[in-house]
Amino acid sequence: MRTDTLKILIATDIHLGYLEKDAIRGNDTYVTFDEILKHAKQNDVDFILLGGDLFHDNKPSRKSLHNCIELLRKYCMGDKPITFEILSDQAVNFSTSKFPWVNYQDENLNISIPVFSVHGNHDDPTGADGLCALDVLSCAGLVNHFGRSRSVEKVEVSPVLLQKGSTRIAMYGIGSIPDERLYRMFLNNQVTMLRPREDESSWFNLLVVHQNRSKHGATNYIPEQFLDDFLDLVVWGHEHECRIDPERNEQRLFYITQPGSSVVTSLSPGEAVKKHIGLLRVKGRKMNLEKIPLQTVRQFFIQDVVLRDHLNLFNPDHPKVTQKIEAFCQEKVEEMLDEAERDRLGNPQMPEKPLIRLRVDYTGGFEAFNVMRFNQKFVDRLANPKDVVHFVRHRECKDAKDEENINFDELLSRASAEVMQLRVEDLVKQYFATAEKNMQLSLLTEQGMGKAVQEFVDKEERDAIEELINYQLEKTQHHLKERRVEAVEEKIDEEVKRERERERDYEMQCIVGTVYPCSRFLSYTSQSAQTIVVSLILEII
Amino acid sequence: MRTDTLKILIATDIHLGYLEKDAIRGNDTYVTFDEILKHAKQNDVDFILLGGDLFHDNKPSRKSLHNCIELLRKYCMGDKPITFEILSDQAVNFSTSKFPWVNYQDENLNISIPVFSVHGNHDDPTGADGLCALDVLSCAGLVNHFGRSRSVEKVEVSPVLLQKGSTRIAMYGIGSIPDERLYRMFLNNQVTMLRPREDESSWFNLLVVHQNRSKHGATNYIPEQFLDDFLDLVVWGHEHECRIDPERNEQRLFYITQPGSSVVTSLSPGEAVKKHIGLLRVKGRKMNLEKIPLQTVRQFFIQDVVLRDHLNLFNPDHPKVTQKIEAFCQEKVEEMLDEAERDRLGNPQMPEKPLIRLRVDYTGGFEAFNVMRFNQKFVDRLANPKDVVHFVRHRECKDAKDEENINFDELLSRASAEVMQLRVEDLVKQYFATAEKNMQLSLLTEQGMGKAVQEFVDKEERDAIEELINYQLEKTQHHLKERRVEAVEEKIDEEVKRERERERDYEMQCIVGTVYPCSRFLSYTSQSAQTIVVSLILEII
Repeated sequence: MRTDTLKILIATDIHLGYLEKDAIRGNDTYVTFDEILKHAKQNDVDFILLGGDLFHDNKPSRKSLHNCIELLRKYCMGDKPITFEILSDQAVNFSTSKFPWVNYQDENLNISIPVFSVHGNHDDPTGADGLCALDVLSCAGLVNHFGRSRSVEKVEVSPVLLQKGSTRIAMYGIGSIPDERLYRMFLNNQVTMLRPREDESSWFNLLVVHQNRSKHGATNYIPEQFLDDFLDLVVWGHEHECRIDPERNEQRLFYITQPGSSVVTSLSPGEAVKKHIGLLRVKGRKMNLEKIPLQTVRQFFIQDVVLRDHLNLFNPDHPKVTQKIEAFCQEKVEEMLDEAERDRLGNPQMPEKPLIRLRVDYTGGFEAFNVMRFNQKFVDRLANPKDVVHFVRHRECKDAKDEENINFDELLSRASAEVMQLRVEDLVKQYFATAEKNMQLSLLTEQGMGKAVQEFVDKEERDAIEELINYQLEKTQHHLKERRVEAVEEKIDEEVKRERERERDYEMQCIVGTVYPCSRFLSYTSQSAQTIVVSLILEII
Repeated sequence: MRTDTLKILIATDIHLGYLEKDAIRGNDTYVTFDEILKHAKQNDVDFILLGGDLFHDNKPSRKSLHNCIELLRKYCMGDKPITFEILSDQAVNFSTSKFPWVNYQDENLNISIPVFSVHGNHDDPTGADGLCALDVLSCAGLVNHFGRSRSVEKVEVSPVLLQKGSTRIAMYGIGSIPDERLYRMFLNNQVTMLRPREDESSWFNLLVVHQNRSKHGATNYIPEQFLDDFLDLVVWGHEHECRIDPERNEQRLFYITQPGSSVVTSLSPGEAVKKHIGLLRVKGRKMNLEKIPLQTVRQFFIQDVVLRDHLNLFNPDHPKVTQKIEAFCQEKVEEMLDEAERDRLGNPQMPEKPLIRLRVDYTGGFEAFNVMRFNQKFVDRLANPKDVVHFVRHRECKDAKDEENINFDELLSRASAEVMQLRVEDLVKQYFATAEKNMQLSLLTEQGMGKAVQEFVDKEERDAIEELINYQLEKTQHHLKERRVEAVEEKIDEEVKRERERERDYEMQCIVGTVYPCSRFLSYTSQSAQTIVVSLILEII
């Protein structure tokens, strides 16, 4: 029976607004989101399931929000009847919403395709309001945001229970949680997936998560085997490589589909895999996942050149070797441009200029040529003229055998991710180490400030620093009050020193400084805070 | 006939998000917007007309947007039938919207109370996208944004033509335009209000504007008599003082209603006038405006003390005069607090802590007492403990007679508005005057940069500076290309000097500097730009 089949469009990591100011690539994310919604409509799906990072920025720009709302209203509202029902308690499923029911059941909205989404790490809830960008859409009735857990110690997932004809799906969602934290919760048995009371075995169990799947450090990912084995299918968000064909986890006996992002946000090999979304059909406990290739995604080609592999061509000691290398590299880029053009012939919806990346390992005494002049040659023919060539050098001290298996990705991810992500906190530390005496922090710890500045920079959480200051100030005042310390500078200093010794090991626990008069203190501290941010901005640009 | 009467709820300057981080006042704007919408519902109005500045910030916070959407969905969606129709071309009325028709006619939305709004100066369209916060609401189908003009040279207002029974309203809107610009357009006869073709005299003509009504400088306001005399009623936004009772302009023979803001955003006398919104009834060409006092607005009391008027009490030469003055002022504040409490007895919805301002003119040899200690005395009893007392001193050199008529408002508005608003551009100028040689701008003018920085700071337009730089860079490259200047630094410098002499008087026309290599130039310039912003931030906090 046709009516027993639930059709679900699956996509993730759409990153609306990514590079929206770029003259060439600015509209890519919007164009592809349009395509995705069009596929949903054309395929007459029951609903859309998104795996997080619908938005690239935690605080999407006005344009980004506007475009998103426009597309959702255009494609997901209309007269198509919804033929599945929700059996679970919606007040639990959508507990963070001001309108805690699925949008298609709201009598004031005419929804044709409901969208369900967990949040990703890019668009996660932050700040005092505890809201995320999806909540704005959810409040407007355009998205059903689920899978939000408010506790930092345990996660209890109540599935959305769906039924269409005789098919029943228990849909579990876990919105992005810092990997280390979720890892720890799994280890401590603090992650519980609640099962439907009635007829447990009749449900198709679907989980959507947004976490690291590949191992970044010991606990900085979620091992597949952590997940419950009653699951039938896991939709894995966050990872940008398209591995949409369901892969069976042999230990747990469930399948994992990793749709991958619908836009290239880093010029690494994973992103060069052809992008797809999925059309999942579920009937009873059987499923089928049809891959839909995305037509509007900008092409991306990447090649690696290891100069030492071409010692027959390049002699590092030859005076003109650098010119020869440059010519060789130019040829490689031309090859990729040709391939892109051929490929594009069959796909008129593709943007005209591809992304091209040539990674050149020049280990072994070679010199890099002038990248800027090289890039200039392709300025009108590709979408990333500023960073076509990327030189990497392998550590020379290692033995030759190891070097043959260069792991470019590792090299690169170290070069970009780590540098970019650790930088903010490092800079804060460094700043204080070298700051003038009168700029040094007294009441706040560098660690606490480092975190606040990171929130400030990464999530544009403009109040993170002020909140930290207020929190620490209140805490200090409370402490002094409890110990009935007189409001005399010397006494406070003394008390605070004692406290500092006692609590030295606790994060954000060291209390030093003058509390009265508050206003002087506050203006002094926030000036320091601003100075840090300012120094950071200067370092970053 | 009842069905011939159009009932319109009129409000303006709701400033959602104003002081939303304040522990005491943070929710004021949301609470009052809730009250306003409740009045609309209780009074069964046909629609709501807003006069701009629904949001306080050009880029409202996520919380602000979320709360606004929540309230609009709660009060303005539902099953009430709409009994008026729109006769005008909606594609013209709502031309800036992606869904250019009135929201209640959208078949996917069940609107019970349509909201029409022009934008204010706080929530005006900015940036490359040319969008404003209202456009996000409008895209979500929650507000009908009208009165937007894209030209900077002329304004042509096509009214929204409404009909209910035999009553017909031509509703004109002019969203906020810089006063000087609109003033000039009026002078040059470039403001046209289009009239309905059919039966011109049968329409009730309503205009909503958001401009300065009181004179701030020669051309920095819109004189009432600039407006067409065919109008029946003007709803004047922007001015925060409630003067909602229609006042007749005797020259033009129309009425003006100035509802005033629904939240106190400055502690000046105009804001102390009791806040109202209006219930406008229009039948044929007759109207009636019923005032609805707002119950949830935080009380605000203000008093002026001129010490020289109390020479019998205070001798400036007496050693303890300052203490006496302080005691006197304390009494005045107590009086206001008492009055607030009495007043609150009858209005249980009012927030508990009032706003209190005592302005003390201490001209004549008096000394100011310690304001911080004074304020501290009232810290738990009022909502603005940081700025209860405000000392002002009149210029001493003026003759005594003049001084008797102290214009506090003028003094204050000079002190705050001018200083705050001119400051950014001044600081930029000052910055460059004193900047180190290698930080000075070459390709950009201080004036252009001043404007961009102002946008950056006031409107949080993060790309204003980058856009200016790109604009100027492209312009320079284009110019050099046209004149076929070789890409050699010296030649460019020469050409650019010539150009600079030629165009010295034109804003943003001076072109000096090195264009090749672009990337070096860009990174250098944006560093300078960031440094300015950074210096400004430090000066401002």
